[in-house]
Amino acid sequence: MRMPGRHFLFVPGPTNVPDRVMRSMVIAMEDHRSSRFPELTRGLFPDLMKIYGCRNGEAYIFPSTGTGAWEAALTNTLSPGDKVLAPRFGQFSHLWIDMMQRLGLDVEVLETEWGEGAPEERIEAALRADKDHKIKGVMVVHNETATGVTSDLAGVRKAMDAARHPALLYVDAVSSLGSIEFKMTDWGVDLAVAGSQKGLMLPAGLGIVCASAKALETMKTAKCTRVFFDFADMKRANADGYFPYTPALPLLYGLRESLNLLLHEEGLDNVYARHTRLAEGVREAVDAWGLVTCCRDPRWYSNTVTAVMVPQGINGAHVIDVAFRRYNLALGAGLSKMAGKLFRIGHLGDLNELMLLGALGGVEMAMADVGIPVEAGSGVAAAQTHWRKTDTVVKRKVARSEVVYASHSTGSINT
Amino acid sequence: MRMPGRHFLFVPGPTNVPDRVMRSMVIAMEDHRSSRFPELTRGLFPDLMKIYGCRNGEAYIFPSTGTGAWEAALTNTLSPGDKVLAPRFGQFSHLWIDMMQRLGLDVEVLETEWGEGAPEERIEAALRADKDHKIKGVMVVHNETATGVTSDLAGVRKAMDAARHPALLYVDAVSSLGSIEFKMTDWGVDLAVAGSQKGLMLPAGLGIVCASAKALETMKTAKCTRVFFDFADMKRANADGYFPYTPALPLLYGLRESLNLLLHEEGLDNVYARHTRLAEGVREAVDAWGLVTCCRDPRWYSNTVTAVMVPQGINGAHVIDVAFRRYNLALGAGLSKMAGKLFRIGHLGDLNELMLLGALGGVEMAMADVGIPVEAGSGVAAAQTHWRKTDTVVKRKVARSEVVYASHSTGSINT
Amino acid sequence: MRMPGRHFLFVPGPTNVPDRVMRSMVIAMEDHRSSRFPELTRGLFPDLMKIYGCRNGEAYIFPSTGTGAWEAALTNTLSPGDKVLAPRFGQFSHLWIDMMQRLGLDVEVLETEWGEGAPEERIEAALRADKDHKIKGVMVVHNETATGVTSDLAGVRKAMDAARHPALLYVDAVSSLGSIEFKMTDWGVDLAVAGSQKGLMLPAGLGIVCASAKALETMKTAKCTRVFFDFADMKRANADGYFPYTPALPLLYGLRESLNLLLHEEGLDNVYARHTRLAEGVREAVDAWGLVTCCRDPRWYSNTVTAVMVPQGINGAHVIDVAFRRYNLALGAGLSKMAGKLFRIGHLGDLNELMLLGALGGVEMAMADVGIPVEAGSGVAAAQTHWRKTDTVVKRKVARSEVVYASHSTGSINT
Amino acid sequence: MRMPGRHFLFVPGPTNVPDRVMRSMVIAMEDHRSSRFPELTRGLFPDLMKIYGCRNGEAYIFPSTGTGAWEAALTNTLSPGDKVLAPRFGQFSHLWIDMMQRLGLDVEVLETEWGEGAPEERIEAALRADKDHKIKGVMVVHNETATGVTSDLAGVRKAMDAARHPALLYVDAVSSLGSIEFKMTDWGVDLAVAGSQKGLMLPAGLGIVCASAKALETMKTAKCTRVFFDFADMKRANADGYFPYTPALPLLYGLRESLNLLLHEEGLDNVYARHTRLAEGVREAVDAWGLVTCCRDPRWYSNTVTAVMVPQGINGAHVIDVAFRRYNLALGAGLSKMAGKLFRIGHLGDLNELMLLGALGGVEMAMADVGIPVEAGSGVAAAQTHWRKTDTVVKRKVARSEVVYASHSTGSINT
Repeated sequence: MRMPGRHFLFVPGPTNVPDRVMRSMVIAMEDHRSSRFPELTRGLFPDLMKIYGCRNGEAYIFPSTGTGAWEAALTNTLSPGDKVLAPRFGQFSHLWIDMMQRLGLDVEVLETEWGEGAPEERIEAALRADKDHKIKGVMVVHNETATGVTSDLAGVRKAMDAARHPALLYVDAVSSLGSIEFKMTDWGVDLAVAGSQKGLMLPAGLGIVCASAKALETMKTAKCTRVFFDFADMKRANADGYFPYTPALPLLYGLRESLNLLLHEEGLDNVYARHTRLAEGVREAVDAWGLVTCCRDPRWYSNTVTAVMVPQGINGAHVIDVAFRRYNLALGAGLSKMAGKLFRIGHLGDLNELMLLGALGGVEMAMADVGIPVEAGSGVAAAQTHWRKTDTVVKRKVARSEVVYASHSTGSINT
Repeated sequence: MRMPGRHFLFVPGPTNVPDRVMRSMVIAMEDHRSSRFPELTRGLFPDLMKIYGCRNGEAYIFPSTGTGAWEAALTNTLSPGDKVLAPRFGQFSHLWIDMMQRLGLDVEVLETEWGEGAPEERIEAALRADKDHKIKGVMVVHNETATGVTSDLAGVRKAMDAARHPALLYVDAVSSLGSIEFKMTDWGVDLAVAGSQKGLMLPAGLGIVCASAKALETMKTAKCTRVFFDFADMKRANADGYFPYTPALPLLYGLRESLNLLLHEEGLDNVYARHTRLAEGVREAVDAWGLVTCCRDPRWYSNTVTAVMVPQGINGAHVIDVAFRRYNLALGAGLSKMAGKLFRIGHLGDLNELMLLGALGGVEMAMADVGIPVEAGSGVAAAQTHWRKTDTVVKRKVARSEVVYASHSTGSINT
Repeated sequence: MRMPGRHFLFVPGPTNVPDRVMRSMVIAMEDHRSSRFPELTRGLFPDLMKIYGCRNGEAYIFPSTGTGAWEAALTNTLSPGDKVLAPRFGQFSHLWIDMMQRLGLDVEVLETEWGEGAPEERIEAALRADKDHKIKGVMVVHNETATGVTSDLAGVRKAMDAARHPALLYVDAVSSLGSIEFKMTDWGVDLAVAGSQKGLMLPAGLGIVCASAKALETMKTAKCTRVFFDFADMKRANADGYFPYTPALPLLYGLRESLNLLLHEEGLDNVYARHTRLAEGVREAVDAWGLVTCCRDPRWYSNTVTAVMVPQGINGAHVIDVAFRRYNLALGAGLSKMAGKLFRIGHLGDLNELMLLGALGGVEMAMADVGIPVEAGSGVAAAQTHWRKTDTVVKRKVARSEVVYASHSTGSINT
Repeated sequence: MRMPGRHFLFVPGPTNVPDRVMRSMVIAMEDHRSSRFPELTRGLFPDLMKIYGCRNGEAYIFPSTGTGAWEAALTNTLSPGDKVLAPRFGQFSHLWIDMMQRLGLDVEVLETEWGEGAPEERIEAALRADKDHKIKGVMVVHNETATGVTSDLAGVRKAMDAARHPALLYVDAVSSLGSIEFKMTDWGVDLAVAGSQKGLMLPAGLGIVCASAKALETMKTAKCTRVFFDFADMKRANADGYFPYTPALPLLYGLRESLNLLLHEEGLDNVYARHTRLAEGVREAVDAWGLVTCCRDPRWYSNTVTAVMVPQGINGAHVIDVAFRRYNLALGAGLSKMAGKLFRIGHLGDLNELMLLGALGGVEMAMADVGIPVEAGSGVAAAQTHWRKTDTVVKRKVARSEVVYASHSTGSINT
């Protein structure tokens, strides 16, 4: 049966596509080899670099996904048998490690508690121990979507520098880029991987990689097999504004519009501040419910996804299922070893307070339905209180509204 | 500056257009005189009749609005100088009366408290007093959008029958049709006026009138001037599946889809039950806030719009302005003599619990911001509690979900 | 059965909606009373005035059609019994006269051959004969869509001035505005009526009227009944950027985009030149087919629609039907006294050479199918030849292309 | 400057997206892990199998392109060092061979004249010579987009069978699938590669592979590196209606609609017959121009793309550039060794006679502009004549139209 009203999509990706971006993708097809096509393409790369905070390097756009971009980052810069260092602290770091192994890399896994971030000290120790620099890469998932944990990349870089180790720093920025501050050059990130369907507010279908100048150097010697994901083909075609194969046109036009929104309208600093403030409200709600997040330490709190631990005796999947079927609300599931133990609220992309209030209200109803003792409205109230307290523009707005608000109270209004 | 996230539209019209209806309007233009065009047109009229609950009469679709449909209903069935009886109990009954007067009708106005519905006893009395049946029409706004009051049309019909008076019953169903039960034939309504932008979940641009067989008879003698709004031209062209002038094609295709949703997917009874249940939750919230509605008597509670009286010393327009500018939430203003005294929450069309929770949460924040002492989350909690209590399908759903919900907890999930 | 490929829409309205305009109408609903809404509205009116060439007056936008705009122009400026002068030379002048009569005006009809334009001399004579200035308006259809005839409005104005007659000049600009030059102020036009679905490249649903300052004066004394179409209500609401009733939002956003295209991108002079050149090509094709147009004198050739007379013994409707069913091509029919005698090719709006070549090719096939002896490709060739000859930018383009065209011949192209 | 009117897209991909398919992609995002999602996914695979004519095997959908699907087909079934046999007769066979080599395969290239198809005799000879069956695969581009040549796959299969050789048959069906008859099982094709942007009438963004049961067996021993493109991950996730990583949702919904159009509305046989008939018309036009196609033998004529050789002294790129800049017409360029020698007219996907007449007319104008002596209208006339002659439904349609066509000639039509 039809479920009326708007679906509340609160998985940590794909995220809601803003109407303007949606509209921008309703395009007629065109020749991607035409003399006019580069007008579109050329503007995308420098703006992507801004999103990455990359001042020296190159970005590539593959008609693919984040998983494909993972593969591109690895195969273009490493050779089979190369040693890499990778902490595992959630499903996505796990899956990336799995890919590394299947690509023939020799992965030194740092097993880390799920709920913690990349362990800087252990990374430093491992690098210091690697006297002859066999480790070619340190692989960090910036925002572990499975646990709601954001690693401290500046800290990781500091650890690598302290160890004076030349390994490249590979980062999965899939669920952070465009939502959480990302400073590729400042943090010395060498390869950063993203997808279109998270902070970039697009459907899935683009796998994006940014490579530092240092990373691009390693391409020359990297022997992993790559054809579809070869940076060199991309680089050559991109130089003239083209792609080596037919690009996913609607997504490129959508990317143009989402970059406009992020960079030229809302502004990246405002985007980051919004994600921070909204996430804080969600965490206040979790606290008001008497529950805890999977993330154990505030220094790792994710501002794009919150994983909420359910009480003993409750299956988190039940909350998710009731939310989905009864309240038209999509939440993220606990994955792998977290299956059943938690549910996840994604709060990234094109989002505002009221959308989240609706979602938190829905979570409360679903939790009550499955037997979690939670006071109705308690989380909603906590989030409201936080957001009202932190609305720094309130004063200016109220002042202005004093002047304007009478404009609504007209009496000559027809049907 | 760009306001991120989805706009919360809670004015009592225009309402949210469902994605499917939006999609259905993205069409190439075509010849509205073609031999194929009637395939679209012909299906619309019988389905509109079902929405009206009309078993004997005709519906007309004007490229216009509810105001235009008002004019069509009046000019096709009345002559200048004709006497009509019209209770005035809100801005929309007021404006319709204003139109009647400007069209040269002699309106006997029954002044009624704003917040009450059509006064059946006084209507009956006026009709009884009209011994020689000079009154040609009784004009009732079914759902007075300005005050959140739904008149009792069955009661009005009973009053008319009790007075054994032959006047036609004219009804403004603009903010009720497709949301609240409407029984044109059973209630003996002769002319019922609607617009596309409320329960039909479309943009504005169609003015719709349904006329009973009795009303169609009066066309022959009605002398009010009409050309654009002439039923006769419509009737003649519609008979072959055409329109007398170029129709608003996207809206006709959108109407096809919204009729599908209302009649053939959700089902009218479910639509009405949903509006009732959602409205009850809103009223529980108002009660929890310690506030009252403009509607004074539960028998007139509107299930499509709730007008909330603000406390002394507060301007309702201030709440609306803060909600709009700070929280991306559109509320309805107090109109005319109600200006500043209330704000209105529209809850009709394509709506569900979580959308309303977001809106109620936003109302709470805006009220707090302008100094109305309201406990954070209190209204939200009251609505949640009501909706959980009244979700009749809960048991079935939970039972089914037991079987299914494990399907979410898979561990092999990539980016 | 599905007809594959793009439909060729060559009726003289509705016209093809450009993709960009189509996209601009895919919008979420919003409160048309909000403090933000006037940002949209306010820009529309001055741009509409530019399309009209009106430097002193006001434009109104009704959620309606051209027929509604006809009614608005008449009822706001005339009183029942007023005398007006109206040449009848096609179906649309006929229908407008019919409306005038139904509105109670006293119409002096100047019967004119279908295929000719407004007869300036007879208009002048009738005005001179009207010594005491009983004639309040002269009613001229600028572009008679039924016959492909464009009247000479400057000539009509000259005739009125020569007669020193104060009557207002009313013009139906439905199928000319935005396609053919229109100089409202220079030509002394007082009321000019248009619809959204022709040169403005939108779906039907907006009736537009522009009124001169002189016309606005007459509003005060005009006694025709009007409510929905009352200029005064519009004027009052528009002053603040609002409308007296719910506007057709998608069409307003679409209008914004189409005005951008016409005024700010292609430029009105280029739009007019394009329509002229395309129409000339069509007339060359008709000539090459050995057929004649309904328009008898080149001074009246329409640049938006060409009505092609079919030979004796052929029913024009047969051509149209075959074109529609077999070739996915919509042509305009002969109307009323022209029924069967002709078919019409609309060539207005968002159109270019190749679209017209496809249509002319389709017309040739349909004509051959029904037995009109026409040489295959002859009309297409004539149009091609004309367009190549008159492409004034050829030289510049070729010169530039010399430099650029190698960019297509790359060898490193994948799937 | 804006180019008015519809763009004529006649490159051999991407092709025009039908309005209905375009509409179907305007969707809100959703959780691709939800319990509802498989309803969409599950229907796609069996319908894709029908398009392939595959009765025993599996289809996979990658968020990628045809190039990615090439890679998937190769890496899932072959090991580095494996020998394969590949005729090279155009740019796309060349590029596929380049990929094979970069993936570490040992390619025995059969150099073939560009303009010819896969050489069955030489394939048979090479296979017969391979006594110990070192050749693991025969690689054939079904429709060589660069030259307008369609290889005879049934003939290739016959050659393989005659040689009693067990190699797998790999086919690039990118520019044939969904337009030209494809009989995977009957022809014994083992791997067939396609993209979304050709016969499937979608934007680029999906790489599709169909594998025979025999091909799926080889997966177990194939040692080429693959992760993103691994069939096994797809197979496992697809079994439950999911994907191993976030799918490109709009394209999946678009695929649903395009499969509906191809299979359930027009019908595959009608689709193939339409492509054949349209292509014949194009070839008649080329002949009328006095030019020749790149394809040397009628047995290899492609029904999706025609490569037209330009006369000595003319650069084909010049024709393309003039067509694009002056007439809003996109043609395909000559690639690699054919650069400058030809231009290509794509005629696949959602296409009809009039679209092609417009394109042929545009080609004539562009050729004349650059100095190719071609009689105006000659190609258009030849195509018209062919299409009129071969319209097998003419008689039925005319008969029916006799009855109906009067319905257009009504006289009561307003604006």
